[in-house]
Amino acid sequence: MRAGDVRALARVISMVENGDGRVRSVMKELSPMITGARVIGLTGAPGAGKSTVTSALVGAFRERGERTAVLAVDPSSPFTGGALLGDRVRMQDHATDEGVFIRSMGSRGQLGGLAAATPQAVRVLDAAGFGVILIETVGVGQAEVEIASAADTTAVLVVPGMGDAVQAAKAGVLEVADVLVVNKADRPETQRTVRDLRSMIALASAPWKPPVVTTVATTGAGIGELVRQLDRHWAWLAEDGERARRRLERARDEVTALAFGAVRERLAVPDELAARVADGTLGPHEAADELLASVGL
Amino acid sequence: MRAGDVRALARVISMVENGDGRVRSVMKELSPMITGARVIGLTGAPGAGKSTVTSALVGAFRERGERTAVLAVDPSSPFTGGALLGDRVRMQDHATDEGVFIRSMGSRGQLGGLAAATPQAVRVLDAAGFGVILIETVGVGQAEVEIASAADTTAVLVVPGMGDAVQAAKAGVLEVADVLVVNKADRPETQRTVRDLRSMIALASAPWKPPVVTTVATTGAGIGELVRQLDRHWAWLAEDGERARRRLERARDEVTALAFGAVRERLAVPDELAARVADGTLGPHEAADELLASVGL
Repeated sequence: MRAGDVRALARVISMVENGDGRVRSVMKELSPMITGARVIGLTGAPGAGKSTVTSALVGAFRERGERTAVLAVDPSSPFTGGALLGDRVRMQDHATDEGVFIRSMGSRGQLGGLAAATPQAVRVLDAAGFGVILIETVGVGQAEVEIASAADTTAVLVVPGMGDAVQAAKAGVLEVADVLVVNKADRPETQRTVRDLRSMIALASAPWKPPVVTTVATTGAGIGELVRQLDRHWAWLAEDGERARRRLERARDEVTALAFGAVRERLAVPDELAARVADGTLGPHEAADELLASVGL
Repeated sequence: MRAGDVRALARVISMVENGDGRVRSVMKELSPMITGARVIGLTGAPGAGKSTVTSALVGAFRERGERTAVLAVDPSSPFTGGALLGDRVRMQDHATDEGVFIRSMGSRGQLGGLAAATPQAVRVLDAAGFGVILIETVGVGQAEVEIASAADTTAVLVVPGMGDAVQAAKAGVLEVADVLVVNKADRPETQRTVRDLRSMIALASAPWKPPVVTTVATTGAGIGELVRQLDRHWAWLAEDGERARRRLERARDEVTALAFGAVRERLAVPDELAARVADGTLGPHEAADELLASVGL
């Protein structure tokens, strides 16, 4: 992997994805090689055009000579893994570019779930020499908010009309957005959606006001401005000490998720205990106490 | 609450929602009053018409004389609580009916999150004498799947066209659907959506094949058939021994979530530990070990 072998890198990411026991020693060995890659999260409802925007951003960062990795994470399903995620075909634009690495990751198997696996995969990509890492997540919800917390900068995509802006607000994703992208901005309701978003942002009191960028990712329109706003946020993060704060929180979340995952493995509820709760002879809190006592807590 | 005081009931649900310490003793006291109410989950993307379908179902169960409760749960946001959820105005149809209780619940505060709070609220409503409890959740994703696991029967709503069926499949919600509802079935693409859903269901090997029901909830069209299919599933659950199995799993999930919540409170990552992970001097797994050791695990 250190020598730039893409298949070796893919195998290490698979270890992270599958919660392979060897991840622990691999992560230890990789630690000194981590330089602090720039991590950009992209999220938005299905159909917002995340894959196309991601692909366009990859192109933009490649023009600057940045080795760029894409991690497409599907937190929404415990069943399908990442198999159905995104339109990977779009990414074929970069298929022959050795400076680009693209990988989907589902929610199977990891100790601590995607909340632990995503930052681990970011470390691996960082150690493998990727200076820019794009994390693409499908959906808008709490899981996406958690994934977003692994990024330095989070871009939230919406499409004009359809109440997307309102839905994003409902799902709490506006609170995590550092940059808002109205994609498919050749549609009629674009200006109204931009206005809606701006008025919602105006209500927030955070020190960084997320800019609203319009793009038509299929033609590349607006991608230059999007990159400019992402860069502006990246510069602000450094100025304000926010970058270090976010990375501290990211490390904290990662450790919590791992510790939590280890505890979960030990906290299997015996049938007999569940049955007593189901038939009402034992309160759920008392059952939880019994369970915790049984593992020494 | 036992005497039918609605405000007392609302206060108990608030205790559950806020993770109030008194919940433990309240749940213990309520245990003998629990009769095993029928719990129906309704989920679907924003705009699918969940509130309207829920309201129509409330009307149908009320016609049979069932005391009916609605728990509208918003798992999508750690920020907005339940404040923005649904269109509660629709529910005003039942505002003066003492046999109906409607309550929103957000994701703040609870020990064990909504995964613990939802079954607790169900117990409270059951003990308060509601024979049918409808759990309405917004969104399609893993959180909704978890909420659905608290129900005996889960209905998933989609709207015609717009790729809703495909999105539901991506999000893994088809796997948890006991009944599929194509609402707003006066729209042109209804038959195609029904066909798409049927062909997706045909691939599954589960013993219960979810029926696909079309409704126009605003006019009441199809609601009778929906109730018939919900009843058919309820009867199947009893025949097959599946009802007891699901309730055992529900109790297990509830105990796990509570035990888990208690552990989470103890697993706060100290700044110093997070800083060592952030600067690369300590691997995340080693940090998790340190953290677990510090609480005696």
